[in-house]
Amino acid sequence: MKLASYKSGRDGTLMIVDHTLTTCCPATDIASTMQAALDHWDSVAAKLEEQYTLLCEGKHSGAEPFDTSRCAAPLPRSFHWADGSAYVTHVELVRKARGAELPASFWEDPLVYMGASDAFIGPEDPVEAESEDWGIDFEGEVVVITDDVPAGTTVEKAANHIKLLGLVNDVSLRNLIPGELAKQFGFYQSKPWTAFSPVLVTPNELGSAWDGARLHLPLRATYNGELVGAPNAGQDMTFDFPTLIAHCAKTRSLMSGAVIGSGTVSNVGSKDGSCCLAEIRCLETIRDGKPSTPFMSFGDRIHIEMLDAAGSSIFGAIDQQVVRYQPSRD
Amino acid sequence: MKLASYKSGRDGTLMIVDHTLTTCCPATDIASTMQAALDHWDSVAAKLEEQYTLLCEGKHSGAEPFDTSRCAAPLPRSFHWADGSAYVTHVELVRKARGAELPASFWEDPLVYMGASDAFIGPEDPVEAESEDWGIDFEGEVVVITDDVPAGTTVEKAANHIKLLGLVNDVSLRNLIPGELAKQFGFYQSKPWTAFSPVLVTPNELGSAWDGARLHLPLRATYNGELVGAPNAGQDMTFDFPTLIAHCAKTRSLMSGAVIGSGTVSNVGSKDGSCCLAEIRCLETIRDGKPSTPFMSFGDRIHIEMLDAAGSSIFGAIDQQVVRYQPSRD
Repeated sequence: MKLASYKSGRDGTLMIVDHTLTTCCPATDIASTMQAALDHWDSVAAKLEEQYTLLCEGKHSGAEPFDTSRCAAPLPRSFHWADGSAYVTHVELVRKARGAELPASFWEDPLVYMGASDAFIGPEDPVEAESEDWGIDFEGEVVVITDDVPAGTTVEKAANHIKLLGLVNDVSLRNLIPGELAKQFGFYQSKPWTAFSPVLVTPNELGSAWDGARLHLPLRATYNGELVGAPNAGQDMTFDFPTLIAHCAKTRSLMSGAVIGSGTVSNVGSKDGSCCLAEIRCLETIRDGKPSTPFMSFGDRIHIEMLDAAGSSIFGAIDQQVVRYQPSRD
Repeated sequence: MKLASYKSGRDGTLMIVDHTLTTCCPATDIASTMQAALDHWDSVAAKLEEQYTLLCEGKHSGAEPFDTSRCAAPLPRSFHWADGSAYVTHVELVRKARGAELPASFWEDPLVYMGASDAFIGPEDPVEAESEDWGIDFEGEVVVITDDVPAGTTVEKAANHIKLLGLVNDVSLRNLIPGELAKQFGFYQSKPWTAFSPVLVTPNELGSAWDGARLHLPLRATYNGELVGAPNAGQDMTFDFPTLIAHCAKTRSLMSGAVIGSGTVSNVGSKDGSCCLAEIRCLETIRDGKPSTPFMSFGDRIHIEMLDAAGSSIFGAIDQQVVRYQPSRD
């Protein structure tokens, strides 16, 4: 099934969306919010599926057109957002561009950072930033949402805890990253907002493209109308999702609604383009000695989407414009 | 006023606790959970205060004895937990022990990392760990809880967003830290659990000890029955709470219920002892060439508390035992 949240208060209103993303209905008689559904997944999932089936068959009496402009992030705020950097080929490329060696351990020990989850933004919400000097960039990623994961879970067990999948744009402020990483405490100011696809979907929606660990489809990033990347998310993912989850649950449990991200999707050699400007700039630096593609400007648009084998959108599109944010300092 | 959460489900039951921490009453007719109260603070705070006054005057018909053994963390899970390292003297000491220079910028640019907030633990909950080899340590800290903080807020404005204060034990796995910091993505596996004092209190409970930016009282850490530290939290705090909040809100808004931590309380020269074993071990290393105090063992107890000028407990005590956690891997 596919689930969205329409904007309403801090946690939105949970909506069930049909397979084609054409119609939807409120799920509020089953669970008022996505977090409430995740907190009681075992008892509500079957009920939601039942309504979803009616909706897909065109038999739901409460069906209404699905309007992505009303969408919040499907999980509008979460208690845990751990973002990996699972495509190590991307990390290697970034290092190569600055003439640094990749430590061998990076191929064996996952990189994960904790992100801000007190407000995720909707698929069509603007990306607000105070200054273009911060080096505004997008990052197209795949994420999974878990139920409760006990501490010390194995990779094999971890796969069973994946309840939903989606796409995100992990907005990054590239010019703030070097200073933050040098302090070793991880990203903070440099990772302000994360936008989500209109819907999250259960693994069974993905057919053979989902092997229980990786999602084998291209992730399409279109920047100001031009397709700049369509790397296959199932290729070159050094650490698959169960491995990331087991890493995150090594010393403590994860609770329902934990969001685990893949990091920027990237394929060896970037032959099908890139899902972030930083990677494009690294390739330019390696080739030309310096980058020629600037970071995002106010007014720029980024569109991130994944199509199934038949060319239909699975998660709906993230489609955002960068806008200037003027803080009130009076 | 003082607020607690009794254990119940994932978010607990919000309780109002009298000034002396003797009696309490449910606040559920005003706000069912602490997060719900924080989400609507402007409209519920006065109502909670009214009940609190009745409770303190011994006139509340629903008063019952306050039982800390029933306490969850006052905010049992949060959408944002940003922990600073605001006592730079502590960071300097840690560096000195390993023969490293402190970058000058560390005195001007706050260190902050994002912590796991999908489940905070109660004041008397065990500290569960799979292995003593992880280097289990406590960290006594002061935290503030904010309402919504707009992006780009000034330090002056930030102070107005502090709604509640409390104490935490930021459990740290010291032997996992060097490897994680070397990867530059910040703490993750090395910061598993954060325990909270039984109550959070509004700033007006603190009298002159709270100057709007720092809390000027000793934080007492008692390890296996021996007082090992009582540094004054108001001294040597390089970055006060409004400065930490403004740092955290530089590029994005913070949402209601954001928890901002001070980092281990520490005074120059550690003349009144230390609020974590790591600092004690650093002092030993500087003096003797190597540490002699081991990290925590299973069965060890840590007690963290702050007393007012009259010797009464302000927040109640964090009192925890370290226990072995045996993960189920079948």
